[in-house]
Amino acid sequence: MRHLLSTKDLSRDDAILILDTAAQMAATQEREVRKLPTLRGKTVVNLFFEDSTRTRISFEAAAKRLSADVINFSAKGSSVSKGESLKDTALTLQAMGADAVVVRHWASGAAYQLAHGGWLHGSVLNAGDGTHQHPTQSLLDAFTMRRHLVSDPTGADLAGLTVAIVGDVLHSRVARSNVHLLHTLGAKVVLVAPATLVPVGIEPWPCDVVHTLDEAIEAYDIDALMMLRVQRERMTGGGSAFFPSPAEYTRLFGLDGDRMRRLPDHAIVMHPGPMNRGLEISAEAADSDRSVIVEQVANGVAVRMAALYLLLAGEEGAQ
Amino acid sequence: MRHLLSTKDLSRDDAILILDTAAQMAATQEREVRKLPTLRGKTVVNLFFEDSTRTRISFEAAAKRLSADVINFSAKGSSVSKGESLKDTALTLQAMGADAVVVRHWASGAAYQLAHGGWLHGSVLNAGDGTHQHPTQSLLDAFTMRRHLVSDPTGADLAGLTVAIVGDVLHSRVARSNVHLLHTLGAKVVLVAPATLVPVGIEPWPCDVVHTLDEAIEAYDIDALMMLRVQRERMTGGGSAFFPSPAEYTRLFGLDGDRMRRLPDHAIVMHPGPMNRGLEISAEAADSDRSVIVEQVANGVAVRMAALYLLLAGEEGAQ
Amino acid sequence: MRHLLSTKDLSRDDAILILDTAAQMAATQEREVRKLPTLRGKTVVNLFFEDSTRTRISFEAAAKRLSADVINFSAKGSSVSKGESLKDTALTLQAMGADAVVVRHWASGAAYQLAHGGWLHGSVLNAGDGTHQHPTQSLLDAFTMRRHLVSDPTGADLAGLTVAIVGDVLHSRVARSNVHLLHTLGAKVVLVAPATLVPVGIEPWPCDVVHTLDEAIEAYDIDALMMLRVQRERMTGGGSAFFPSPAEYTRLFGLDGDRMRRLPDHAIVMHPGPMNRGLEISAEAADSDRSVIVEQVANGVAVRMAALYLLLAGEEGAQ
Repeated sequence: MRHLLSTKDLSRDDAILILDTAAQMAATQEREVRKLPTLRGKTVVNLFFEDSTRTRISFEAAAKRLSADVINFSAKGSSVSKGESLKDTALTLQAMGADAVVVRHWASGAAYQLAHGGWLHGSVLNAGDGTHQHPTQSLLDAFTMRRHLVSDPTGADLAGLTVAIVGDVLHSRVARSNVHLLHTLGAKVVLVAPATLVPVGIEPWPCDVVHTLDEAIEAYDIDALMMLRVQRERMTGGGSAFFPSPAEYTRLFGLDGDRMRRLPDHAIVMHPGPMNRGLEISAEAADSDRSVIVEQVANGVAVRMAALYLLLAGEEGAQ
Repeated sequence: MRHLLSTKDLSRDDAILILDTAAQMAATQEREVRKLPTLRGKTVVNLFFEDSTRTRISFEAAAKRLSADVINFSAKGSSVSKGESLKDTALTLQAMGADAVVVRHWASGAAYQLAHGGWLHGSVLNAGDGTHQHPTQSLLDAFTMRRHLVSDPTGADLAGLTVAIVGDVLHSRVARSNVHLLHTLGAKVVLVAPATLVPVGIEPWPCDVVHTLDEAIEAYDIDALMMLRVQRERMTGGGSAFFPSPAEYTRLFGLDGDRMRRLPDHAIVMHPGPMNRGLEISAEAADSDRSVIVEQVANGVAVRMAALYLLLAGEEGAQ
Repeated sequence: MRHLLSTKDLSRDDAILILDTAAQMAATQEREVRKLPTLRGKTVVNLFFEDSTRTRISFEAAAKRLSADVINFSAKGSSVSKGESLKDTALTLQAMGADAVVVRHWASGAAYQLAHGGWLHGSVLNAGDGTHQHPTQSLLDAFTMRRHLVSDPTGADLAGLTVAIVGDVLHSRVARSNVHLLHTLGAKVVLVAPATLVPVGIEPWPCDVVHTLDEAIEAYDIDALMMLRVQRERMTGGGSAFFPSPAEYTRLFGLDGDRMRRLPDHAIVMHPGPMNRGLEISAEAADSDRSVIVEQVANGVAVRMAALYLLLAGEEGAQ
C-alpha cells in the first residue's frame, strides 16, 4: 500500500492487515507510555480544505503517538484561497518534505488527484473527499464490529454479519466507504433511506434497500445499526425538496429506545459523530449499553495509527 | 488533586504544594536545556471555546517543556458549532486518549461540568470559565507575590499581606479567583471598584471594598496593587449603564505615576495582561521598577507546569 | 548574528555562512532520519500578523527538524486585536521563554521594532514585513542560484551572474531583499517593471531598470529570471491607476514558452510562489525543465534550518 484513498479499491487482505495492525496499536495505547518511536523524523501534514476538528485531531493524535512531526495546514486563508492550484500546493508540500499528506477536501476525487498527480513522493490518506469516500472512518467502523461481533477477531473478516446504514446515504461518504468495505469483508449491507436519498440506479451497490427503519428492523436480523449524521443545512437549503422535515425524519429514520429494544440482543448501535441528539438518535439510544459510539472514536486513533504505520514505516520499518 | 477548577475549593495545603512545585519548575527554566521528560507520552488537549492566545500558548509551552504532546482544539468552526454538546465533545476527547483537558469557555461553570460529568478519566484544568474562575491566573499571581513580598517563600503563605484589586470586579474571573486564593493564603483583600461593579451582597466575599483608588491608597498599607483589565466592549455595550466612561474610569481607578509613588516603597504593581495602556494603567506605571507584570507571564508557565505535573504525573511519577 | 531582519545589513561573510550552513542542512534532509537534536529544549514562536501558510509551515518544518518546540501564534483574534501593543506582545513572548520569534507583519519595520525594542532576549527572524524585507526568501533564492549556476558552490558568491526580477517591484519585499543580497554577493540585478512600479528615485538601488520583459531578454545575458507574484487585489483595488490590466501585464511582463526559449540555455526560471499560472507565468514555463520553483521551496526549509541553527545554537552549540 502506498496510499489510502478509498475502500472500493482496498483488497480484503489489505483491509485485514490494517485491522490486525490496528489491534496491535490499540494494545499499545493501554500501556503506561503510549508513545512509539516508529515514525520519528517523519513529517505528517494535515491538509484540510474543510473544517473537521474531530478527524484532524484523531490523525494528529495518531501521528504524534508514533513520534511523527505534525504540521497542520488549514487551507482557509492560505494561498489556496488566493487561487493556488492543488498541484502547486502538492508540489510545495513535497518540497517541504511531507512523508504523508492527510487530506480533507470538499471536492469528491481530490484525494485521488493529489495521490496520482505525480506531485508527491509520499503517501496520501483520504480524510474525506466530498460525498465520495472516508476510508479510515469505515475501517474504524469495521474494527469496532470485529471487536464486538466476531468471536476471534484476529485475521477474521465480517462474513455473516448484517449491517444496516440509516439516513442520507446519497450524500454520505461514510456510507459509501462502508458499503464497499463491508462487502469486501463479507458482511451483508442494508441501506435504510428515503427513496430520494439513495444513489441506487446511478451506481449499483452490493446491498439491499428499504425505506423505513421499522421495515429494516422487522425484515433483517441486524447485527450493527449505523446511524448517519443528518446535515441540517441540507434540510433547509437547496436540497430540501429531497429531504424529509426534521420531525418526519425522526419519525421514519430516527433511533429511539423503542426501536432499539426491537433489535436482536447482541446488536450494537453506531454513529460516526458528531450526533444530533433528538434528531437521528435519541439520548436514550446514544447513551445505552448497546452504543459503541465513544469506542468508535478511540478505535479511530488506533486505525489511523495503523494506516500511518503501514504506509510510512513499511515492512522493513516494522517493530 | 485530580482537577484544577477553582480556587474556592483549593485547600491551603494544595495551594502551597502548587506554589512550591512551581518554584522547582521555575528553576528548571533557567537551565541550558529546559525540557523535562516528565510527561512524555501524555496528551494535553487545549479546548478553547473563546480565543485566548496568551493563556493557550502559556499552557502549550508548559506542556511541551514537560514533553507532553499538545493538541489544540479551537471550538470555532468545529462540530461544537454544529451543535455538538459539551458531553459529546468530552467523550470524544476521552476516547482519543486525552490525559488532561485545558478548557476555556465563555460559560461560567463549564469547567465543572466537564470535570464532573463522568465523561473524562483525565484531569480538567480550568483556563477561565465565563465570569467565574481562572485559577492558574491567581496561582501565578500568588507565586509572584511570594517571590517579592515574602522573605523565605518556600512553604510560606501570604499571611499579613494586603492586596488591592482594582477595576471591574463584578465581571472578572481573575478577581474572583484571587479573592478566594488570597483569603486561603492569609492575605487581606481590598476591592477597589465602582459600586455598580462589585458583586458584594450577591455573594459575600471575605474582603473590604472601597470606591476610589485614592481612598484605597490612603486607607490601606498596600503590598500588592493588582490592576484588572478593562473590557472596552463593556463600556460601550449593553453594560454601559453600570460602567464609568473611559476618562472617568482613568480618573477614579487608573494607576498613574503619581498614585504609584504614594504606595509603600516595597509595593508591587500587577496586571493579568493584556494591558490597556493609558486606560487602567499608565505607561509610566506599567514600565516602572515596581511593575512585575512581565514576570507574572513567566511565572504563569512555571505555575502551569506545576499544575500539569501534579495532576498528571502524580506522586509516584515525581522525579 | 543575533537577528535576521534584512539583507541590506547582512555582510557578505554572514550571507555566505548561512548559505554554506544551508548546504549542510540540505544534506541532512536526504538521510533516512532527518531529525537533528540541535535545538532540543528551545522554543520557536511563529508570530504571524498576516496569514502566510507556506512561510509558516516552512519555518515550522525547519524548527521541528532541529527538534525545537514550535508554538504558532496567529495575531488574528488574539489580544493583539484587542489593542495590545507590539511591545507587550514581545514582553509576553520573552516571559514565556521564546528563544526565537519568527515574525510576519503587515507593517514595514515591524521586525526591526521587535528586535530592537529591548523587549526580547532571543532572536528575531523576519518572515516578511510589509513591503520592506523577506530575507529568508532571498537567501533561499541565492542558495538555489548557487546550486545551479556556480560550479563549486561552497564558499562562493554569485559574482558575474545576471539576475532579472520581473513585476511589481515597488510593493515587493521579495524584490527588495533580493536586490540587496544579490548586490552583496556580486551579482548584477536588472529590474523589469512598469515605470509606475519601480521605486528608483525614492531609494537608489544598485541595479538596472528596463520596462518590458522582451527588452530585458534582448539586452542582457540573463542567468536567472525571477518572476514576482502579482497581487491581483492591487490590480482592481486602490493601486489600480499604477497597475496594468491583467492582459496587458501578461503581454508585457508575463513569461511564456516563447520568451523562455529566448533565454540563454543555462538560464533558470524562479518564482517565490504561489504562482498565478496564466498571469505572470504560463504553465509551460512553470513546469519546464528550467523551472526551479519547486526546488526553491525545498531550499527554503534548508535555509531556515540554517538561520535558526546559526542564531540559536551559536558556534559553541555546533555539532
